[in-house]
Amino acid sequence: MEQAVVEQIVRQVLANLPNQSIMGIPAGVSNRHIHISSEHMEALFGRGYSLTKDKELKQVGEFAAKETVTLVGPKGVLAKVRILGPVRKITQIEIARTDGFILGVVPPVRDSGQLEDSPGIVVVGPKGAVNLPQGVICAARHIHMPEADAVRFKVADGDRVTVAVPGMRGGTFANVLVRVHPNFRLEFHIDTDEANAVELKNGDLVTLA
Amino acid sequence: MEQAVVEQIVRQVLANLPNQSIMGIPAGVSNRHIHISSEHMEALFGRGYSLTKDKELKQVGEFAAKETVTLVGPKGVLAKVRILGPVRKITQIEIARTDGFILGVVPPVRDSGQLEDSPGIVVVGPKGAVNLPQGVICAARHIHMPEADAVRFKVADGDRVTVAVPGMRGGTFANVLVRVHPNFRLEFHIDTDEANAVELKNGDLVTLA
Repeated sequence: MEQAVVEQIVRQVLANLPNQSIMGIPAGVSNRHIHISSEHMEALFGRGYSLTKDKELKQVGEFAAKETVTLVGPKGVLAKVRILGPVRKITQIEIARTDGFILGVVPPVRDSGQLEDSPGIVVVGPKGAVNLPQGVICAARHIHMPEADAVRFKVADGDRVTVAVPGMRGGTFANVLVRVHPNFRLEFHIDTDEANAVELKNGDLVTLA
Repeated sequence: MEQAVVEQIVRQVLANLPNQSIMGIPAGVSNRHIHISSEHMEALFGRGYSLTKDKELKQVGEFAAKETVTLVGPKGVLAKVRILGPVRKITQIEIARTDGFILGVVPPVRDSGQLEDSPGIVVVGPKGAVNLPQGVICAARHIHMPEADAVRFKVADGDRVTVAVPGMRGGTFANVLVRVHPNFRLEFHIDTDEANAVELKNGDLVTLA
């Protein structure tokens, strides 16, 4: 079906929905986690190892693995840090600023994959350790959007928007990156510091300001 | 001097200042801490003990003590939690939501002193322990304002305002309590979760939205 036709159908469907349900974007709170390369997975868990799926995540194909690692920084340690699968080309560790204080690293706030000049850390698994030279970031908050949602919110991939959070401890988050992809499920991704600052929990609804 | 005269002079002075410098409110980031009663201090540090000043805080008369305590919750422990002096009538522990997850307590977001139905915790010092039945809160963000600042910001004690934080990770905090007192120094008090969520550091300037 042509994009223009899809958009027209989406508009017609949305015109008949109550306004509240249209505008809500569910929050997805990311606890500290690691995306791991095959090479590093084998270094930590042994040759030929593969991840065991524990729980599917909202984004299609992504899952929380049963496996966890320990992060060892210059000032402290974080144990039981969840691996998110599937394996990736490059290992990337996403922590909150608060986690950074515990570990003794000050990662930059970055979009996923932008790892230049990010700090490294020691990652320890049951079969070995990896001295990662770089790859620790604070993930910049962003919204995953399927194309139909981008149409109704009138935004495009790469846009920066302001997200409003309701409640006594609410407020707004500026410069939130919009990522549009046919396979995405609508979700506002923030880290634990951001969620705790405004009392957001998984599935709570936010809106575009 | 009469209040009306003071206000008039303040207005005249401010009219001649550049706008930027007028509107900035310095942030004060509160790490987890405890305000302690004499009774509890003696239980933890010994009979007749008094606090040793380590560093004066921005608010007049307040200080960080050299003494720290350990908080023991149902799920975890936080060591080296700073005592803020002077001693108070009632012990009050202020932690961030993130700290609560470590300890295994879910304190309510409250203005200082509002401790009804807040969770308790075990507090341990070098000479003993106290099983505090209640008193753990997440301090609601607030602004300390001397009267002259209240005049120029056109706000009154008890008002709720929106605070704007600049920067790529900026945004706004809604429902921020304004506290006006002659002895206060201008300061926007937030906890570490809130500061980390928007990359605010001690002394960074915010504005009223």
